[in-house]
Amino acid sequence: MPISDVKALTFDVFGTVVDWRGSVSREIGALANERGLEVDADLFADEWRAGYGPGMNKVRTGEWEWIGIDAIHRRRLDELLVQFGISGLTEEETAHLNKVWHRLDPWPEAVEGLTRLKGKFIICTLSNGSVALLTNMAKRAGLPWDCVLSSELSGHYKPDPQSYLKAAELLGLESGEVMMTAAHQGDLLASAKSGLHTAFVRRPDEFGHGTGLGNTANPESDPSFDFAADSFNDLADQLGCPR
Amino acid sequence: MPISDVKALTFDVFGTVVDWRGSVSREIGALANERGLEVDADLFADEWRAGYGPGMNKVRTGEWEWIGIDAIHRRRLDELLVQFGISGLTEEETAHLNKVWHRLDPWPEAVEGLTRLKGKFIICTLSNGSVALLTNMAKRAGLPWDCVLSSELSGHYKPDPQSYLKAAELLGLESGEVMMTAAHQGDLLASAKSGLHTAFVRRPDEFGHGTGLGNTANPESDPSFDFAADSFNDLADQLGCPR
Repeated sequence: MPISDVKALTFDVFGTVVDWRGSVSREIGALANERGLEVDADLFADEWRAGYGPGMNKVRTGEWEWIGIDAIHRRRLDELLVQFGISGLTEEETAHLNKVWHRLDPWPEAVEGLTRLKGKFIICTLSNGSVALLTNMAKRAGLPWDCVLSSELSGHYKPDPQSYLKAAELLGLESGEVMMTAAHQGDLLASAKSGLHTAFVRRPDEFGHGTGLGNTANPESDPSFDFAADSFNDLADQLGCPR
Repeated sequence: MPISDVKALTFDVFGTVVDWRGSVSREIGALANERGLEVDADLFADEWRAGYGPGMNKVRTGEWEWIGIDAIHRRRLDELLVQFGISGLTEEETAHLNKVWHRLDPWPEAVEGLTRLKGKFIICTLSNGSVALLTNMAKRAGLPWDCVLSSELSGHYKPDPQSYLKAAELLGLESGEVMMTAAHQGDLLASAKSGLHTAFVRRPDEFGHGTGLGNTANPESDPSFDFAADSFNDLADQLGCPR
């Protein structure tokens, strides 16, 4: 289907809309400070994030039953608290810390860019974060989604095709009427295989200027993508959304 | 759980948030006018709505496989076009008319009341309308939902308990942390059985001042409900949401 048929933009969230590394690092740093501990907070964030893909893979291969993102984050957090020597947290404190992923800050231009895109398209999340996580995040950060969709609703984590196809179905659209927007090649290459259009948005600071452990994603666009942009505002310009 | 634990309000939509009868009647009236036909547009709206419960019941009893709300509306519409002598619509025109349920207008105070409630609670739909219908409706009408939930996500129409429990699960909440808000006793009585709190909102004009065919719902509150209000603004007052 031609690009002019696109009615909805679905967005990857972690890294594309929000700065997970900076947000998690700030909370870990504040916690360490409060308790007089020496902790490399950036490394903690990177190591936490690095447990995310392997956790989802265990679901994908059937080694783990379907578990939500909070549970995947929590299994990794429990290991990291030991590894980084952070002890003495109550269960309530640990549960609160685990939900830092519900409290991530958007990239500075994200809300403005999304608001412009919303004027012309349905805009919604399509993340491996849960509906609850994405709803809490949007409420706190003022992200103006038309609706909140998640891999959770298909029972298959991205980049499994079911996650993309279920989102199009729930929006009442053909996959060619949907454009996936993400800062990661893999997400977009998989979307395209399911017939979605693709918009790449560069987020060069996602992994801490290329120094982070988790920097395994390809931060560059691919010639096969329909759009490549430096920001949501740039994408809004390219799509003819008024300022 | 005590009322003070409520973190999210889930809303019935048809009749509670939007005036389906007035909205459908206006479109049918305009169509008839355009074609020089004499049609009782209020009666058409009532008869269309009257096909909705029986359609869902056929899904509930297994007589029909799960079908979405658009398909339930369409089966009834095809009958009514014959019954009311409206002929000569193209497939595209009929499909567009069927989606009038995506274009319903809110009650005049609904957006203001919801905006106040949103300041204190997560607010989301919990309707038998599909995610697509509710998303399109919200976008057109400016309904400020934090997220869009639907019976569709459980595969069970309200008032089946699965629909309420799935909504709480997707919000990451216990059912006692959720309050169902509706203009219909049956919806709230069923919610309460699943452990949700309940807020009744009177919408006395839903069925055309009590004259409509579809007026089979009890428009009064029940002493068992946690709140009874004359509007969303009244509910916001009772829940201590600032103006």
